[in-house]
Amino acid sequence: MEMANDKSEGVLARWGEGLEAKFSKLKAKVIELFRKTKKLAKDDPRRIVHSLKVGLALTLVSLFYYFEPLYDGLGASAMWAILTVVVVFEFSVGATLGRGLNRVLATFFAAALGFGAHFLADLAGDKAQPIMLSLSVFFLATITTFVRFFPRLKARYDYGFLIFILTFCLVSVSGYREDEILNVAYRRALTILIGTFIAILICICICPVWAGDDLHSLVSNNIELLANFLEGFGGQYSNEWKENEVVEECKSVLTSRQTEESLVNFARWEPGHGTFKFRHPWKQYRKIGSLTRQCAYRLESLNTYLVTECQTPLHIRDQLKESCSKMSIESSKALKVLASAIRTMTRPTFPNPHIERSKAVAKDLKAALKIRPCDSGMDLLEIVPMATVASLLIDSISCIEKIAESVGELASLANFKCVEVGKSASMKLEQHQEQKLPTPAIVNGHCHVVTID
Amino acid sequence: MEMANDKSEGVLARWGEGLEAKFSKLKAKVIELFRKTKKLAKDDPRRIVHSLKVGLALTLVSLFYYFEPLYDGLGASAMWAILTVVVVFEFSVGATLGRGLNRVLATFFAAALGFGAHFLADLAGDKAQPIMLSLSVFFLATITTFVRFFPRLKARYDYGFLIFILTFCLVSVSGYREDEILNVAYRRALTILIGTFIAILICICICPVWAGDDLHSLVSNNIELLANFLEGFGGQYSNEWKENEVVEECKSVLTSRQTEESLVNFARWEPGHGTFKFRHPWKQYRKIGSLTRQCAYRLESLNTYLVTECQTPLHIRDQLKESCSKMSIESSKALKVLASAIRTMTRPTFPNPHIERSKAVAKDLKAALKIRPCDSGMDLLEIVPMATVASLLIDSISCIEKIAESVGELASLANFKCVEVGKSASMKLEQHQEQKLPTPAIVNGHCHVVTID
Repeated sequence: MEMANDKSEGVLARWGEGLEAKFSKLKAKVIELFRKTKKLAKDDPRRIVHSLKVGLALTLVSLFYYFEPLYDGLGASAMWAILTVVVVFEFSVGATLGRGLNRVLATFFAAALGFGAHFLADLAGDKAQPIMLSLSVFFLATITTFVRFFPRLKARYDYGFLIFILTFCLVSVSGYREDEILNVAYRRALTILIGTFIAILICICICPVWAGDDLHSLVSNNIELLANFLEGFGGQYSNEWKENEVVEECKSVLTSRQTEESLVNFARWEPGHGTFKFRHPWKQYRKIGSLTRQCAYRLESLNTYLVTECQTPLHIRDQLKESCSKMSIESSKALKVLASAIRTMTRPTFPNPHIERSKAVAKDLKAALKIRPCDSGMDLLEIVPMATVASLLIDSISCIEKIAESVGELASLANFKCVEVGKSASMKLEQHQEQKLPTPAIVNGHCHVVTID
Repeated sequence: MEMANDKSEGVLARWGEGLEAKFSKLKAKVIELFRKTKKLAKDDPRRIVHSLKVGLALTLVSLFYYFEPLYDGLGASAMWAILTVVVVFEFSVGATLGRGLNRVLATFFAAALGFGAHFLADLAGDKAQPIMLSLSVFFLATITTFVRFFPRLKARYDYGFLIFILTFCLVSVSGYREDEILNVAYRRALTILIGTFIAILICICICPVWAGDDLHSLVSNNIELLANFLEGFGGQYSNEWKENEVVEECKSVLTSRQTEESLVNFARWEPGHGTFKFRHPWKQYRKIGSLTRQCAYRLESLNTYLVTECQTPLHIRDQLKESCSKMSIESSKALKVLASAIRTMTRPTFPNPHIERSKAVAKDLKAALKIRPCDSGMDLLEIVPMATVASLLIDSISCIEKIAESVGELASLANFKCVEVGKSASMKLEQHQEQKLPTPAIVNGHCHVVTID
């Protein structure tokens, strides 16, 4: 009896434990979900606003159903307004405008063509009509689907082609059954227009998210991230830096291509806003972005040498170390100037003094290495990592120069404002002073002194 | 009089010329368009087949309108079948299945929820009903829109969430007007099912395009492209190679991330086909792909040193050149073995003999550089490019090792078949013979002889 009691108690206890374990697992999952949701909202609070805007737009269009006078005019076609809002409303103004315009234009063209097909088929007589209609649907769908593969058209008008096929099929085929086809089409077109209008209106009027703004800050941010990496890299011997964070951020530049590409496409739909005019040269951002990634590939290769222990004999190491450190810090400054030029929409000084200085350092280094006779017994292997770092940095300088050029192009295309004279004069002064600082080739007593031209 | 004649003749001649110029411009444009279309079709003939399939599917669903018995059952809801086919039919089977399942499941869930909201609002009385409905639409749309921002859900179920919002709004709101709401909903759901079924059927039965196959060959192809680059790089001093083509192809690896990502998502929807089982480890391809790109970043940095003129003193240059050449050729072979292991779905030999050999070369080179005393008067600068190439190649070897590991993981996850014994024995023999070949450290008489352990 006691044993049986013990057993049942044991079973109960195990059940209890099992339940508790499941409950605590569930609790952990709920907490995790809550944490993720919070992070998602915190990372970009515009997401919450966007969700509320979609809710509002849908509630607005659903009013068509509730108010007698509105519903009488549109009838069941009111459904198309809801459908349009759901499909057209996107996160950024550019995406919404692009989809909206694609939808409206494609609907009108396709409807016109559909009517044409319908009337032509009507002329052919009752028996031939379905065959004519089927053939027209087949050929139009086939050709339009193939056209969707053209990369340039796909990037901007893919949705339009989809709606074109859809509307053409609906209009030409429905015509076979519905007698009041013109009336039906009129009401549908009207509701699609209304839906698009409401979506675009709410998207623009309530806390608009401009793809152009996002693109602008993405591009300048990416340049800034590279600058941070180089700054950290240059200073790594002297002070601590949040290596992992900076490296991870720098890696995010490598994968930014797709986001950038779609932002460019969206931004081109947007009207002028804020400091951006209607025909802002958005395509130039694509060019700057791709050069930034070119530079990021170099830095990604540099990354391996971050933790390399250095045992190179003192004088060479000092020479290389100084030069590398100086080059990366100057490159970092150059990139920071470019990033802030984009951010503040001011013309960057050309030629960029920091680039010139890092080029001078590279030149000095080269000259120093060239004329310095090699000590016998020197371990070549120990120079290799440092030499690699130096080469990659010199490579990055030429990348940065290209970035500077394309930022310059952007500045002239978009008529960036010039820096005020006072500021630029003080910059020149600072530049003048800094140029007088001794270069490492001169500092390192172990080497021949090389003068800069 | 003559002058007037001359003038009018001149005007006519200019008009003629203008017309001719315009005509030839138009002609050139048409030819260009024709050329582009041909290239698009030639690059991937499946595009034509896909377009024809879409045309066929749409023609099939439009039959609902033409045949009396079919139309009587479905009525104007037949429109939803057309809409579904247009929206669901994608290029690959995985994408079509993903969209189809998303659409069907989301429609059913949302319809059930919509009915629930409708009946609840019905209970609240005539006046409160629109308010209740509006509130439910607002909250559901807001929450679902926010959920769409979760990256993981977005990748696979974004379309489903969109349809969920759409259907919920349509059902709950239409319920306010239509009395036969259950009947309407039934017919709509049926037509959506029919449309999805036709789209999936045609997509799978007529020349199916499997995203999994594409992913499989994309990943092995990318590895092969890197191998080609390294092969060309290793042999560049001795023979001519189509530099630009190989380099361009290698650059395409850098931008393959997005394609790969979407192919992984599509492939996961696909049933077993050909040599792939249902739960083929598609996610592992993502890992291999990202490691391949890591390696490609290194090679992209190498690219700069392709055309560097080499003036390093003979003995060192020979040492470095031989080693670099040997390393890149062995790395290239290692990558080719991995690519073909993926392509033929066989287990790669582990450890990979080519990787081991290139590691041995790297080790020899290091040892040789370490113990060889430096000649005085040697120009350090001239070693730097070569040293950089060597470092980057050594770096790539560790990348390639990681790729080999993850290909090994794929092989064991997907149960790749083992190579037959005879073949592997002959491979071992070949390996044995090759290992007896003298390494550059031994060949170059100028250096101390280093034995390999």
